[in-house]
Parts: sequence; structure tokens; C-alpha cells
Amino acid sequence: MKKNSIVLYIVGILLIFESAFLLLPMLVSFIYSDGNWMWYLLTIFICLVLGFPLTRIKRGKNLSLKEGYIIVALCWIVLSVVGAIPLCLSGDIPLYIDALFETVSGFTTTGASILSDVTLLSRSGMFWRSFMHWIGGMGVFMFMMAVLPMLGTSDMNLMRAESTGPSVERIVPHVRDSARWMYGMYFGITLAEIISLLISGMDLYSSLLLTFGSVGTGGFGLLNDSCGTYTMAQQIIIGIFMAASGINYTFYFLIISGKIKEAFHIEEIRYYVAIIIASTAIIAVNIFKIYGSVGQAVHQAFFQVASIITTTGYSTADFDMWPELSRTVLIILMMIGGCSGSTAGGIKVYRIVLLMKQFKKELSVLRHPREVKLLRMDGSTVKEPVIRSTNVFISIYFVIFFLSLLLISIENYDFTTGFTAVTATINNIGPGLSLVGPTCNYGFFSAFSKIILIFDMLTGRLELFPMLLLFSMLKPKRR
Amino acid sequence: MKKNSIVLYIVGILLIFESAFLLLPMLVSFIYSDGNWMWYLLTIFICLVLGFPLTRIKRGKNLSLKEGYIIVALCWIVLSVVGAIPLCLSGDIPLYIDALFETVSGFTTTGASILSDVTLLSRSGMFWRSFMHWIGGMGVFMFMMAVLPMLGTSDMNLMRAESTGPSVERIVPHVRDSARWMYGMYFGITLAEIISLLISGMDLYSSLLLTFGSVGTGGFGLLNDSCGTYTMAQQIIIGIFMAASGINYTFYFLIISGKIKEAFHIEEIRYYVAIIIASTAIIAVNIFKIYGSVGQAVHQAFFQVASIITTTGYSTADFDMWPELSRTVLIILMMIGGCSGSTAGGIKVYRIVLLMKQFKKELSVLRHPREVKLLRMDGSTVKEPVIRSTNVFISIYFVIFFLSLLLISIENYDFTTGFTAVTATINNIGPGLSLVGPTCNYGFFSAFSKIILIFDMLTGRLELFPMLLLFSMLKPKRR
Repeated sequence: MKKNSIVLYIVGILLIFESAFLLLPMLVSFIYSDGNWMWYLLTIFICLVLGFPLTRIKRGKNLSLKEGYIIVALCWIVLSVVGAIPLCLSGDIPLYIDALFETVSGFTTTGASILSDVTLLSRSGMFWRSFMHWIGGMGVFMFMMAVLPMLGTSDMNLMRAESTGPSVERIVPHVRDSARWMYGMYFGITLAEIISLLISGMDLYSSLLLTFGSVGTGGFGLLNDSCGTYTMAQQIIIGIFMAASGINYTFYFLIISGKIKEAFHIEEIRYYVAIIIASTAIIAVNIFKIYGSVGQAVHQAFFQVASIITTTGYSTADFDMWPELSRTVLIILMMIGGCSGSTAGGIKVYRIVLLMKQFKKELSVLRHPREVKLLRMDGSTVKEPVIRSTNVFISIYFVIFFLSLLLISIENYDFTTGFTAVTATINNIGPGLSLVGPTCNYGFFSAFSKIILIFDMLTGRLELFPMLLLFSMLKPKRR
Repeated sequence: MKKNSIVLYIVGILLIFESAFLLLPMLVSFIYSDGNWMWYLLTIFICLVLGFPLTRIKRGKNLSLKEGYIIVALCWIVLSVVGAIPLCLSGDIPLYIDALFETVSGFTTTGASILSDVTLLSRSGMFWRSFMHWIGGMGVFMFMMAVLPMLGTSDMNLMRAESTGPSVERIVPHVRDSARWMYGMYFGITLAEIISLLISGMDLYSSLLLTFGSVGTGGFGLLNDSCGTYTMAQQIIIGIFMAASGINYTFYFLIISGKIKEAFHIEEIRYYVAIIIASTAIIAVNIFKIYGSVGQAVHQAFFQVASIITTTGYSTADFDMWPELSRTVLIILMMIGGCSGSTAGGIKVYRIVLLMKQFKKELSVLRHPREVKLLRMDGSTVKEPVIRSTNVFISIYFVIFFLSLLLISIENYDFTTGFTAVTATINNIGPGLSLVGPTCNYGFFSAFSKIILIFDMLTGRLELFPMLLLFSMLKPKRR
């Protein structure tokens, strides 16, 4: 039972961490005296009562990548199941399945809500669900590793399982130092956005929550029209910080290390910026008639493009009402997603670029059969396992996508609703089109569909393999 | 100029073959005295005048796979451009771009029509467009190879470029004999369906055209409601022959060779049959309320499932009006398509099975890192290049899919229309949903969108690489 004991030990640590996270919404509850502090305290108590004994279990050996995947998947489920408790008990979201949907949506930085009126939430409940974005954005294991020395060499496998992108590498030799660097930069960007929003005249509470939502690429807002009522300057600040949060964090690390030239030579980021510029231009031209001025059209286009490609999901306009070309551009951006090694979801620009390069190579092999061509990215050859796993990833992505669509369609809503509901959850965006458009919510789905979408959110955030591996373990073992 | 001379030589032969094909609609025109014979004669004349001199050009060396791909892509375009002439001149479809759309739709066995009332077509025009399905189903090069000794060892590369599925192998050692076998079986199935329909009481003309449409998995009908008005027995005959035409022809070869057991052990076919049964069952349950009887529900479900998975596109009911679950099942079947080595389009069951096995293998590698696992299909190991090309195929398939969707969306029709129009053309099905549903047509699209869809039909039929390679050659050459 050595293996199980490691799993339990890590779940224990996770619960203790969650109890610490829960202190913040409890504090908010005190400040605004909304009377919900006791539910957070109760949940903290549950976390500690369950968590502490688990950490006392004697633990053994290191974790393999497989075990890392499974533990991460399991812990994200535990994190959500527990995190939903105060939302449910406080009456903010009385139905547990809805509270769980909202919590998974929070931690996976999806931002899809089942609430028809978010302004009815208590101050603490609203804070907690936005704070989940911030925790989930960089990852809860990353945080645990930054704070605690966990399991030595196992940490790398946990980091791999939780991080985004096909080839996760430490930015500095030690995993723990990498985690600290990542969280340091995350903190820095967070602080920068909070200060910017405060300077723009926004109150602290709103600044905090919107920052959690944009830096974590989550998308939960405070108002029913998302970001529509903020000033243009505030919208621009949020837009820029969203776009910045979709960038591979290696970029910031290189900038800090003074390697400016190297930073600007990361191919993925160049493509990412190019996609943002091209999409903004196409949409701006397409929606010009609606907004009447170039400035407004570009502003609206940029905000929505930055929000969707980073899979945040904030909106300043009801893009469901935009012309079909703009809607289609947004759907494609939903699938592409941000850069690997960022807090964004989606397939990731890196994988798309790798795919295009592979395709060019296949054509080139046909055209010049005797030339030996290697796939290069950022100047070095891409290894065969990375290529293979990228291909399997994209193919499986579509398999899960269509299976989910099939199950959602049992409910008999229109195709656009089903298609974009799955797109918006598996890519961790939030709003889709039609019945799940930016002015709507996911409340009308049945519990069955909600469970499918919860699965999609977790599978998308953890990049398919952890969740699939966990579920494949539920089958009776061979041997 | 040696290379170009081979290309021209093959285009010359193709034109001569096309002139021979055109004799049939000319004959039909004589029989029904619809007065269009002269346009077919004129086109035959054009084919011969252009074709004969080309075949006189001195030709050299063998063709590489790349050249095979390019020639096949080029020839399919020439075949369509010329085939559209009589439809246009006879006034059946006066606008050339529409005639070209209809012709490409015919040869690629798509069956998407721009006509709002097919019954207005002349007898010869209607015959010609259905006959295109029969030519395109097994492939025009396959036919040329079966009749003529072409270019010796190059034939294999032409066959590979035109056939469906990831690993095309000759069923008998010689390419020419393989082509003859394939066409022989194709003829046999064709004859069997014609006779069955005649016995059911259908007239010869309708029997011929419906057979061309189902055996070639095309889908052009004679009536505006496709197959809705035929008797139940006739619908069942068409349904069974459609399903039979989506099966890998190796199956029939093995049956004829007396290798019954081997035939029934082909994995792809087992999955194909399983998918048909499962989809029919799901849809039958889902539409039971509409039809009121189990028999009718199963009958309607089976016909549509057989029609869609084989990418034929015939319909006995307006499945656009069915509940969302059934519609979604059909959309997924559109993408899956029939077996490799059949006349059907789509991604092909073989590739989907290979994908699932790869995925299972990746999970298994994570679970048991020390076990060496090979991908096996039909008892033998699948080679690495086949796996790689399958993955690249599926990924590129979705890239082309979404790019086409983007370009189509410029026209501002609803998402379901655009999505299923691209699905129905790239997979060579014909009808989609919403504005391109079974009771509608593609006539309302702009010329620009029609060109995109024409490209998708050709790209889908020739399985991506030939068309993409041809277009990549348009760029200035390196070196």
C-alpha cells in the first residue's frame, strides 16, 4: 500500500493548503459582514480534520509521471468538491451540483457560470469564486512546491502534469526554484494589474477580483454584463493584462534575466502576437458598421480577441450578436488558446505551430524526398516524443470534443449552443454563443450535462491525460 | 521538360477517356430526344482535339509519389472543368460556376447540388451528373489502369494518390490486375443493385441513376425529396447497397477468393458495422416519437445512417427536423466516413480505429512504462509512417476544416449552416443541416464560397495531400 499512502499524503497536504486559501474569503466575509464566515470556517475545519491525519501517514518512494498525472487529477477533483461546500452552505448557490460546476469553473479558470444574476452573490462568495481563478491559473501544485519541499524528485512529474503545453521544462535547474520564480512573476503581474486598476479609479474589491479573473485567465466578473460598464481605460488595462497572461512565462523570465533578444525570439510568442493582431484586424473590419468608429471597433475587437485567445472569457460586448465571420474567428481562437507555459487554456499556440511545421515538412518530404528535414522550434530540433504526443493530443482533443457534444445533444438544444458550450468548457473560456452566449449562463443544463461539462473543464485544464488516466484506472486492472 | 511531358501525356489520356464517358449521356439524349446530344458531341470533340496531340508527346521516366499526387489532383480538376461544359451549354445549369460546382460534386461523389428543382434537368443532364458519381466512386485512374497499361511502375503511385485510406495495397501482385479486380467487383455490385431495383418495379432510368449514386456513394437523386417517395422495399435495397459500398473492397475480394474467415476478421469492417448498428439504435430510439412505430423508426434511422456514414447523402426523411441528438450523431458520422479502400469519403473508420488504438497505447505506456507495446491492426504491426501520416491527416483535416469555415462565414449565414456545409463537402456527403439541409441546396452561396466548397470537395475526395501539394507547387520554387 506504499503507493496509496503517497496519494493520501499529497491529498492531505492539498487539504491543508485549501484551508489556508479559505481564510481569505472568510476575512472578506468579516470585512463586509455578510454573515458567511462560519461556512468558510466550517470548511476550513473539515479540511484540517481530514488533511492532518493524512499527512501523518508514512510515505515511500518517488512518483512516476503516471502517478503524478493521477494524483494531480484526483487532487483537482478533491479541491473542487471541497471548495464548493461554502458556496452551497452559505446559500449563494444552494444546489450542490451547481456549486460544484461553479467551483470547477473557478479552479480550471473557465469562468462559465450557472448564475443568471451574479450580483446576488454575497461579497465573500463572489471573492471566493474569483480567487479560485487565481489559485487555478498558475496551479495549486506549483504553489505547494513553491512553498514546501514536497517529495524531492517527484515534484517534476507533478509540475509536468499540471502545467500547460507539450514540453514543460524548468526555467531554472531546481523544480522548487522554478516554482518560486513562476509564482513570483505571477505575483508581480497580479500586483501590477491591481495597482493599474486602482489608479484608474476602481475600488479595491473590484480591482482584486478582476485581476484574479484576468491574470488567472478565468473570467468570472462582478457584474451581469461582465466588463461592459467599466471605463474605456479600465477595459484597456484588463485587455492588456489578459493578453499578457496568455504569454509563455519563460518570456518574462528571460526579460528579467536580461536576455531581451532571446525573449523576443520565442517563436510561439511571435505567432501568438501575430494571431492576436490578425484576428483583431479581421473582427474590427467586420464589426465596424456596428460601432461606427475605427477606435471603438478596434477597442471592442481587441478586448474580445484578448479575452478569448487567452481563454479568459470577459466581454465588453455581446459578441453573440456580431456577424458570423467574427463569431467564427472567436470560435477558432477558443480552440487555439494561449501559449504553453502560461495560465491560458486551449490547444495552445505551440501545438498549432508544431502541427503546421509538421505539415510543411510532410509536404516538403513529398516534394524533395532526398532532403533530410528536421522539425525545428526556437532554433533547436523538436524531439520525436513531443511531436507524437502533440499529434495524439490534438486527435484525442477532437474525440473528447465530439463525444461530449454527443452527450450534451441529448438535451436537444440547438447545435450552436451545444458546440460552443463544449468548446467554451474544454478550452476553459466560459461564455460560448447562442444559449451560452456572453449575456447568458449554463444554469439551464441538466445535472447530467453539467457533469459532462465539469469533466470537460477539468480535462481541458489538465490537458487531457491526467483525467483520462484517472478514469482508465477505474477499470479493473490487468495482471 | 521531361516531367511536364508526362503530365501532359496523362492529361491527354484522361481527356480521351472523358470523351468516351461522354458518349453515354449523348446516347441518353438520343433515346429521350431532349436535344442536348450536340453539346455532348461538342465536348467530346473538344476532349479529342485537346487530348490526342497531348498523347503524342514523347514521354520519359517514371512518376514519383509526389508527381502521382500532383497529376491526380490536376487531372481531377481538368475532368471537372471539362465535364461541366455540356451541363452549362445545354442550359441545364446555365451559370458555369454552378455547373462546375455540380460537376465537382458529381465526380467527388459528394452529391451537393445547387439546384432548387432537380426535376427541371434534362434526361441527359441528369444522367451525366449521376454517371459522374460512378466514375468518381472507384476513381478515374483506377479505370484507366484497368483498361490500359499506363506507365508501368508509376501506376502504383497514381493508384495510391487516388485511393482512399492510409495504407493502400494492391490486392493482387500487379497494379493493373488489382485495378481490374476492383473495377470487376465495382461492376458486380453495380449490376446487383440495378437488377434488385428493376425487380422491385423501378424503371431502368431511375434504377441506373440511383445505383450510380449509391454504389459510388454520391447521392444525386432524381426527385426533390431524394429517396422519400420510393417504396419501402426500394429504400431498403438502396440502404443495403449504400452500406455495402462503404465496406473495404478487400472484404469482397477475400469472399470471392474463398477466404471467408479472413474477410470477417478485418477489424475496420467490424468497427464499421458496430458503428452503423449503434448509431441506428440511438437514432431509432431518439426519433421513435416522430414515427410512432419501431419498424418505421429503425427503417428511417438505418437509411440515414447508411447514407451518411458512407457519405452518400440520400435521404428518406428531412433529418434536419430530427432531435439534436440524432443530428449530432449524423454530424459525427459525416466526419467518420466509410472504410478505407471503399468508395466512401470522410476520415475513414481505419484512421479513427488507429487513433483510438494509439490513444490506448499512450495511456498504457503511462500505466506500464516498461511494457513494450506495438500498434496492431488485423494481427500485424502498423508501421510508423502509417501512424504518423494518419495523425498528420487528422490534424490537417481539422485545420482545413476550420479555415474553410472561416472563409464561408464571411457570407454571414448561421453557424450550423456554415459548419455543416463544410462538413458535407470536405467529407463528400452532400446535404448538411439548416440552410443546406436535405430539403435545401447550395445555390444561395456566393461564387467565392462555392469555390471554397469546390476546393473542399476535391481535397476531401483525394484525401488532402494531392490538392495541397498541387497548391504548394504554385508557389515559386526554392533552389
